[in-house]
Amino acid sequence: MTNTPWAQALLTPRSVALVGVSDDPAKTSGRPLQFLRRAGFGGEIWPVNPARATVQGERAYARLADLPAVPDHVFVLTGADRALDALEDCAALGVPVVTMLAAGFAEAGARGASAQARLAGIMADAPGRLLGPSSIGIVNLHQNLVLTANAAFAEPELPRGGVFVASHSGSLIGALVSRGKRKGLGFAGLVSVGGEADLSLGEICMAALDDPAVTGFALFLESLRHADDLRRFALEAARRGKPVAAYKLGRSAAAAELAVSHTGALAGDDAVADVFLRDCGIARVDSFEALLEVLPLLAQVPPADVPRAGRVGVVTTTGGGAAMAVDRMALRGVDVVAPSDATRAKLRAAGVDPGAGRIVDLTLAGTRHEVMKAALDVLRAAPEFDMVLATVGSSARFNPELAVQPALESHGQPGTPLGVFLVPDAPQAARLLAGAGVPMFQTPETCADAVAAALQRRAPRVVEAAAAPAAPRPLSEAEAYTRLAAQGVRAAPHLVLDADAPVPDLPFAWPVVAKVLDPVLPHKSDAGGVVLNIADADALAQAMVQIRAHVARALPGTVVRRILVQQMVRGVGEVLLGLHRNPEVGPVVVVAAGGVFTELYRDSAMRLAPVDLATAQEMLEELKITRILQGYRGGARGDLTALAETVAAFSRLAGEATHPVAEAEINPLLVLPEGQGVLAVDAVMEAEP
Amino acid sequence: MTNTPWAQALLTPRSVALVGVSDDPAKTSGRPLQFLRRAGFGGEIWPVNPARATVQGERAYARLADLPAVPDHVFVLTGADRALDALEDCAALGVPVVTMLAAGFAEAGARGASAQARLAGIMADAPGRLLGPSSIGIVNLHQNLVLTANAAFAEPELPRGGVFVASHSGSLIGALVSRGKRKGLGFAGLVSVGGEADLSLGEICMAALDDPAVTGFALFLESLRHADDLRRFALEAARRGKPVAAYKLGRSAAAAELAVSHTGALAGDDAVADVFLRDCGIARVDSFEALLEVLPLLAQVPPADVPRAGRVGVVTTTGGGAAMAVDRMALRGVDVVAPSDATRAKLRAAGVDPGAGRIVDLTLAGTRHEVMKAALDVLRAAPEFDMVLATVGSSARFNPELAVQPALESHGQPGTPLGVFLVPDAPQAARLLAGAGVPMFQTPETCADAVAAALQRRAPRVVEAAAAPAAPRPLSEAEAYTRLAAQGVRAAPHLVLDADAPVPDLPFAWPVVAKVLDPVLPHKSDAGGVVLNIADADALAQAMVQIRAHVARALPGTVVRRILVQQMVRGVGEVLLGLHRNPEVGPVVVVAAGGVFTELYRDSAMRLAPVDLATAQEMLEELKITRILQGYRGGARGDLTALAETVAAFSRLAGEATHPVAEAEINPLLVLPEGQGVLAVDAVMEAEP
Repeated sequence: MTNTPWAQALLTPRSVALVGVSDDPAKTSGRPLQFLRRAGFGGEIWPVNPARATVQGERAYARLADLPAVPDHVFVLTGADRALDALEDCAALGVPVVTMLAAGFAEAGARGASAQARLAGIMADAPGRLLGPSSIGIVNLHQNLVLTANAAFAEPELPRGGVFVASHSGSLIGALVSRGKRKGLGFAGLVSVGGEADLSLGEICMAALDDPAVTGFALFLESLRHADDLRRFALEAARRGKPVAAYKLGRSAAAAELAVSHTGALAGDDAVADVFLRDCGIARVDSFEALLEVLPLLAQVPPADVPRAGRVGVVTTTGGGAAMAVDRMALRGVDVVAPSDATRAKLRAAGVDPGAGRIVDLTLAGTRHEVMKAALDVLRAAPEFDMVLATVGSSARFNPELAVQPALESHGQPGTPLGVFLVPDAPQAARLLAGAGVPMFQTPETCADAVAAALQRRAPRVVEAAAAPAAPRPLSEAEAYTRLAAQGVRAAPHLVLDADAPVPDLPFAWPVVAKVLDPVLPHKSDAGGVVLNIADADALAQAMVQIRAHVARALPGTVVRRILVQQMVRGVGEVLLGLHRNPEVGPVVVVAAGGVFTELYRDSAMRLAPVDLATAQEMLEELKITRILQGYRGGARGDLTALAETVAAFSRLAGEATHPVAEAEINPLLVLPEGQGVLAVDAVMEAEP
Repeated sequence: MTNTPWAQALLTPRSVALVGVSDDPAKTSGRPLQFLRRAGFGGEIWPVNPARATVQGERAYARLADLPAVPDHVFVLTGADRALDALEDCAALGVPVVTMLAAGFAEAGARGASAQARLAGIMADAPGRLLGPSSIGIVNLHQNLVLTANAAFAEPELPRGGVFVASHSGSLIGALVSRGKRKGLGFAGLVSVGGEADLSLGEICMAALDDPAVTGFALFLESLRHADDLRRFALEAARRGKPVAAYKLGRSAAAAELAVSHTGALAGDDAVADVFLRDCGIARVDSFEALLEVLPLLAQVPPADVPRAGRVGVVTTTGGGAAMAVDRMALRGVDVVAPSDATRAKLRAAGVDPGAGRIVDLTLAGTRHEVMKAALDVLRAAPEFDMVLATVGSSARFNPELAVQPALESHGQPGTPLGVFLVPDAPQAARLLAGAGVPMFQTPETCADAVAAALQRRAPRVVEAAAAPAAPRPLSEAEAYTRLAAQGVRAAPHLVLDADAPVPDLPFAWPVVAKVLDPVLPHKSDAGGVVLNIADADALAQAMVQIRAHVARALPGTVVRRILVQQMVRGVGEVLLGLHRNPEVGPVVVVAAGGVFTELYRDSAMRLAPVDLATAQEMLEELKITRILQGYRGGARGDLTALAETVAAFSRLAGEATHPVAEAEINPLLVLPEGQGVLAVDAVMEAEP
């Protein structure tokens, strides 16, 4: 099946059937008919209800098969059992798209398992596509298609515009449309993607991508399921310059996660979502209201090719109001930059007193049109800003002509992107600004959130997620070192000895460490399988005996056959490298402060794997521990060049062609003094043998 | 002067004079006359303008002396020079309160210095009090006193209610009144406190405290100047059960602050503000909108005597909407608690399916009045919650009868405090709830912010800020140890030797460390003044020679006279203790992770000093490093009891009666194994000799 038929039937159907529609327009299952009629949908609308001859005054059909034609789009409003019957009928008739309201499938766990199995069975042979289950519907405002049971669409004048919303939560499309209306922001479409049993959020957005009415996307995400579709869509959206913003649930899962010192925990779901969305070029916001407020700004600020804090110039009619926004922006890492001397001179020449501070504070000048306009024009022509923020105080409420109108006028002229933070509640000013496409923020927190998300948005980094190995098995430490060496990652000098053979001459210096070598014993120390600081051959022989005894006692039945002896090396510092395969987005690479501080302070940086050298360097710049490695307080400098190269090399293990790696961890990786490289002194790995 | 006359003239004047009032009601200096008349102020209003016979159609007086009587309250609307003339006239006439709009005084730095000096001179002898300078005025809505130049008060129907706002920013009173109106929250009064040259924010709030119309306070703070007045007010407000909420600028100052490893930096201004406000029992919110949304909740949730995360039970008509709030609350440390088995049974008995999850999700049940009402009644009677949060989805916008009305009804009955998060924009529902006193939140972020601020608010901790010593001087390490010993804080065994005398027998074991002893050399190591790991008497003699040579080379002219020899001791871990005197709030005590990690990870806890043992224990619980000291991964446990006692003892140094300490730092304080105590191994101190 090509893309076109279902996409057209999903977003611009010529005919719609409503299965199970209620006669009572106030009921959930009665709303879609009422909403479609009220919106003036131009296509055919066919109520289907076997129990009634009419529904809400319109002729009702008993069965789908009785309809005058095969509908483009069927919205099934019944409970799960009858919905599956209807889905079967749709499949038999060849309906291109079915939207299903019913819940109680995969998301209901064991209780929904049989319904889910039946649904999967029907869809396996169906010629059409399914939106849902658990979808509260789909809205295409430019087609007057209000095919939803969400109560908020009783809205008398639905706000039309360019935003396309796709949401894992059905309720939230109602929240967004009402909040957008208050902000003066309009929508092209809103889709409740439901359980994504068939059509995924990414596929749906892709279908809307080339609609000229769609100027940007707002995603409400509960998870990253079907991440590949989402990534494909995001890359295409970036190619077309249509911005994508996302609000994703799950921040607290990361925050509350019990800390354990392995990569899996550091690669917590929310942190993975952060790196995935960033690498897709999607602007993630932290606050719900910023999901809408950020879009007009994204339309003007191109994504960055290298990490960017974002430089913002601020002009204000209220010192306190601007201070709130500046405070929050600084917390988000945005640089609020003072006007340069040249810019100050131009401001003065234009009759604006720039003051001495970081922001241009017009409070004392009084709020006057000509002063605000002159200040905006000069600031928007200055090269030192990525964006200019105008903060407007009490005048915005009843006197938008004083400071809001100049922003509207300036926005119409070329220059640095402009945004306006309205300090009082000023709905009229908000609608004026939004109507003209001026980015507008209603609280200091959403202002900072949107500004940071927009200015710090990156151009997509194309990472092909490597397929997971089919049958990985744990490797021994020595095998792991061999795999690492193949990528150019060195381990400290080591040798594998038979546990019961005599000690040979070692090809490296004393002291050494002796470790039990057994792929199924990753926690060697816990089993008494490690002896440190071995000074000579006698001590090594003794240590080997001791390890055999300890392991036998700790793990009855385990026989120590081989022992790895490794030179003890001291570094300037140590880090942890981890490669973790996230079930949704594929492999990620983590670099973190080593030792107990890994767990205590979670000082780590993550990216989708693999990474190149520049990205590895970015990761190191995000780590606080890097300051130690840079020669903190007169200490020795570590070999940060080798470390970055090693991070990049390590990250390539995931996509290794012949023996792909499922999971790997080097802990610790010793960082030697500058010029001397880095050395793995412990490693665990699961890989295709 | 007693409290009463100025307080009455400030908040409920019988007559008001407007000096420099403009004939143009649109001008800043014309607004107050227009606003007072429009509001129907019942007292006398006397325009004063020497240039005009009438102002806005009313008779104008040329001079204050021409008025029929001495006005209770004069609002001076002119520029700084003429404002000072008017202030002189007011002083001569005995005007009880003058409010001054003009800026250009202390806040203008050098430029305003002479104006500030003249103002101080006038006020030194004035019988009345001054609000300002830089005050945009004062509003008492229950008296129809709209004595302000803030443009937002052109509001046709100003919202009356119980909130009293005091703000360092004049513009923000306009932002708050407009935002409050949208939320259905009303105000008793709003004051722009300006530069606080005379009347402080704390004094002004104290004056409003016993007004029965005032039910709570919302403070917008730019600093903690006049912290003593604020603390006095906060303690009195707590005694009367009138809640106080604050939004304070300056979060980013702390975030952006350059890290240096001394107490002053750890006790950054914003962190100090946090502890000060908490110790005052003031609920600090992080988001501007929550400053208003938190007050109805504070009115219902009593402050806690011991630290409390806050246990919240959640019922929702929208899974996605509730998830946003739950996510944010969890990030703020609030416990979203599942209903107990008993509560689940009661829910089922009442016809509500509680599901299996942490929240009671009514999404599938459909949004119905009787189900929501039953769920709320059961949850509000359950003992496992400190608060119940109802999350209401799309129905809130057009069908408040379905899920908002039950909340209104339940709120009218006794039970656990109830709050409502409205997921869509639902202004009518918001006003219904706010009008009935039901805490109502308009975004997930403000909901979490307000809930955390209210549930985690503490009862005030009364700390008398000790006066700073008059002439502190730096003490030597040995002197510091003596002062510490007097409070019960032990140092590692040590002895002071003459630098050129022979080495005596030491009363403690080798190895030792030798350190130059000089009060003006706090950075001993940098000058080569420290030798570690000295194994015997010969090595010590050598070390002493070496120290003398190194210091002489590093700091020419410095002669080393004495050397402190100290036993080298190993601990389970180390911390830093600091005592710092904040210019606004007085002494604070800090405990932090020691070593390089102090600076890198800023793992620290702070309180106003002194602290008792329980508070010291709370501080340790806030530190991540405490997990190491608790015996992390099989490591030895540190003596946490002795550590807490030492934190408390150390904190008392600030209030030491005979030789008060200005600043002190122990870095590191070694924590020995359980039962063996803690030992200072370095200390710097400035104190009254």
